[in-house]
Amino acid sequence: MTSFQLPPLPASSAGQASRFPAGSLAFPHRGLLGIAGLAPHEILFLLDEAERWVELNRQPTKRVEALRGLTIINAFFENSTRTLLSFEIAGKRLGADVVNMHAATSSVKKGETLIDTAMTLNAMRADAIVIRHASSGAVRLIADKVDCPVLNAGDGQHEHPTQALLDALTIRQSLNFTGGEGFVGLKVVICGDILHSRVARSNILSLTALGADVRVCAPPALMPEGIEQMRVTPYHDFDKALEGAEVVMMLRLQNERMTGQFIPSPREYRHLYGLSPARLARAHPDAVVMHPGPMNRGIEIDSTVADLPERSLITRQVEMGVAVRMAALEILTRRARGMEGWA
Amino acid sequence: MTSFQLPPLPASSAGQASRFPAGSLAFPHRGLLGIAGLAPHEILFLLDEAERWVELNRQPTKRVEALRGLTIINAFFENSTRTLLSFEIAGKRLGADVVNMHAATSSVKKGETLIDTAMTLNAMRADAIVIRHASSGAVRLIADKVDCPVLNAGDGQHEHPTQALLDALTIRQSLNFTGGEGFVGLKVVICGDILHSRVARSNILSLTALGADVRVCAPPALMPEGIEQMRVTPYHDFDKALEGAEVVMMLRLQNERMTGQFIPSPREYRHLYGLSPARLARAHPDAVVMHPGPMNRGIEIDSTVADLPERSLITRQVEMGVAVRMAALEILTRRARGMEGWA
Amino acid sequence: MTSFQLPPLPASSAGQASRFPAGSLAFPHRGLLGIAGLAPHEILFLLDEAERWVELNRQPTKRVEALRGLTIINAFFENSTRTLLSFEIAGKRLGADVVNMHAATSSVKKGETLIDTAMTLNAMRADAIVIRHASSGAVRLIADKVDCPVLNAGDGQHEHPTQALLDALTIRQSLNFTGGEGFVGLKVVICGDILHSRVARSNILSLTALGADVRVCAPPALMPEGIEQMRVTPYHDFDKALEGAEVVMMLRLQNERMTGQFIPSPREYRHLYGLSPARLARAHPDAVVMHPGPMNRGIEIDSTVADLPERSLITRQVEMGVAVRMAALEILTRRARGMEGWA
Repeated sequence: MTSFQLPPLPASSAGQASRFPAGSLAFPHRGLLGIAGLAPHEILFLLDEAERWVELNRQPTKRVEALRGLTIINAFFENSTRTLLSFEIAGKRLGADVVNMHAATSSVKKGETLIDTAMTLNAMRADAIVIRHASSGAVRLIADKVDCPVLNAGDGQHEHPTQALLDALTIRQSLNFTGGEGFVGLKVVICGDILHSRVARSNILSLTALGADVRVCAPPALMPEGIEQMRVTPYHDFDKALEGAEVVMMLRLQNERMTGQFIPSPREYRHLYGLSPARLARAHPDAVVMHPGPMNRGIEIDSTVADLPERSLITRQVEMGVAVRMAALEILTRRARGMEGWA
Repeated sequence: MTSFQLPPLPASSAGQASRFPAGSLAFPHRGLLGIAGLAPHEILFLLDEAERWVELNRQPTKRVEALRGLTIINAFFENSTRTLLSFEIAGKRLGADVVNMHAATSSVKKGETLIDTAMTLNAMRADAIVIRHASSGAVRLIADKVDCPVLNAGDGQHEHPTQALLDALTIRQSLNFTGGEGFVGLKVVICGDILHSRVARSNILSLTALGADVRVCAPPALMPEGIEQMRVTPYHDFDKALEGAEVVMMLRLQNERMTGQFIPSPREYRHLYGLSPARLARAHPDAVVMHPGPMNRGIEIDSTVADLPERSLITRQVEMGVAVRMAALEILTRRARGMEGWA
Repeated sequence: MTSFQLPPLPASSAGQASRFPAGSLAFPHRGLLGIAGLAPHEILFLLDEAERWVELNRQPTKRVEALRGLTIINAFFENSTRTLLSFEIAGKRLGADVVNMHAATSSVKKGETLIDTAMTLNAMRADAIVIRHASSGAVRLIADKVDCPVLNAGDGQHEHPTQALLDALTIRQSLNFTGGEGFVGLKVVICGDILHSRVARSNILSLTALGADVRVCAPPALMPEGIEQMRVTPYHDFDKALEGAEVVMMLRLQNERMTGQFIPSPREYRHLYGLSPARLARAHPDAVVMHPGPMNRGIEIDSTVADLPERSLITRQVEMGVAVRMAALEILTRRARGMEGWA
């Protein structure tokens, strides 16, 4: 029905050996629980595969039958519109049957244990389960109990791997390179609530694995102790952190952190850690700006910066999100679908 | 798979020139934000197209592949079961991938601006976005920011265009005429909360454009000042308004209007503005009765009237709703699908 | 697309007459409102058909096109994650277009009568409506007003027929017999809140129809008067009820029953009616354990019992649930789909 032909993997150019191991060795993991534990070539494999889906998503007709007859359950124990929509669209464009389990109406409210919920979803013969949960580690708990691949769509303050992947893909596309060379030595600043952010954590793991020079910047109360052990350079002074930065990643300031023990006030936070045009001028002249959304315009980021036509990559990130999730779902179900080299 | 053949447009009968301009000139609009701005022939084009989908929906198998591979997002910022279900069924029967974004779980709750939400949906490469919002004008705000067609599923007290279209289609079917001649001079009464009702507003615009003789009836506190400028005749006396009426459209009395500044009490409202059998007898002997639902039986309409077997068109309206929404979605995506004459 | 071939009905073995009447006589009912009114051979027909879907659901690709182009509406007026998910997956694997109507956002909240809701769903040309409602009898009320098959997904304290069917199928599979002979004289204990449980009621009707020896056990305040008329033996002493039992079905203790007039305390309930390993030892040495979920571990059932590898059938029940619902949806739409012998 679809006349669109998926483009080949970018790197497997004629006469040249592919830069990835063959078959399932390219990505030997059962699920995608985090960036931790992924080798750099595995991250790059996910990015390369995602790029093919970017192409599909830009066609008028954006659907393949790759996952036809497979059941994907999005089990979101924590509200999330964007990520849920992104996974739901990803699954449907791959031809899968997608069902959403909303926390608000779930048996969990009736006192069922998380493991019983996992076993229930498993017994319905799900082929992939996508989970968001407010508790760090809840996703692994479920993954250990089910037979199918589990994808972490964000668990507590732990990891949000598809966010880190879509961020890396966005960087690579905007800086116009392929493979991983362009990440080596790339100066990236991540600024905001480093302490509580799973987005920060997954991005630190991913970008350092790819060789980037990662600086993290936060008020003292929102910077984890010993963060240097993650091979990043901590800053409390945003102006200093920005010097020469090529990528500026702003984090969302959660409402519940806006007062009290963590920061004096949103106004003070903006003054010290908000990305204004003046402050952005301290970075590399071509520095790009990223934000995982939803933004608090006027707090962690000024509207003039968020809407910079070339340099703000914020909507591009959303677009890459669908492609990265398609890649992850397609790769992780290859074994069950009996794809050659993966069974 | 589907052996059903869509019937041709009713008017393009052999040897006769079609009554609509060719190709995209038949409906040159990017979206469907309201009835305002539509020419009468454009309204009739939508009705004629919808009639073909009525036929499909009455088949045992009711699905085509016209919108296969397209992503439709229903973004409902205000609760609505009926309209959401109707749009969701419409999109699925056309073969599209349909995803719902529920307000209750949306990023809007996290303080994201409406425009950021729009840009997010756009970046996911939606092919059509259906929006319901409590604020008049919110739908246009979103439509201005996205690349795909936007359909207004009701915005504040502004417009609800698919409701007006399904009402016009229901009238035409029940009075058994084609084209638009039958609307000219047709005596229609719209009774209820004219001041706040987007259903009333869209119907006034549609029916007056088609040449109907529209009377509006409301208690003084629920009648907009200067309504005569919309080319309707205002009444406060329902009995007088009904004289000779061929179509009686009742509006839902919102709970929040039932007490206080607008009406003295539901009982009083019923006494003056409820449609009882005795009152209906003042209308044309064959007058038909309509209501957009959900009804407050015993308040704005008596059960005996609502359930009149031939003359109450209330469930017919629901049926036409699915067809009208299929027509709008199919027409508005023709350009993106590269249909001849529309690209 | 799907290379999977549905296996034939198990009983129609070569050279032997089928044990079911031909065509629609095998299941002459318009809907599935309850187990009451079903003949034993009709129950067994549903089980046999379900077994074929069990096979499909164990394939890597689990989708057929049997219900392509049909619209199934899941109208859940009462929250239920598991049952809704199960019906949604069942409908999608059959190829139908499935839409969910959530109570929380429904017009019912706006004061619409249940019958108006039913007529609305009907006017949208649903091909099957699945209903859960907190009031006993609400499902029949709707079924009487619509043209399509209605499936009861649980109504008040009345019936939950697909639960009884999946329980019977689970028993038959685990005891490894076909047909209905194995149910005759089978010693089944149902323990818990017999008074309020639709699961208990539907299971009593199903299992006694199939000839099982059904014992029900509850505290005095949770045992209906005159239960003997349902051809079961009532017990207040769980230990006695368990003697020689081959199947032990535990019911969920609803939170709202845990204190006050019905039981003294959860601790007391557990002491007298909880299924511990010691208590299970009083049953037949091979007795199997069932629970409709979600479980209150440590109240009506101990974790060690719930997790017994061979004898606990709890996740098997969930698996059978999807298959039973596929069977019911497929059979009930045969007439509308014009299947030979059913039209």
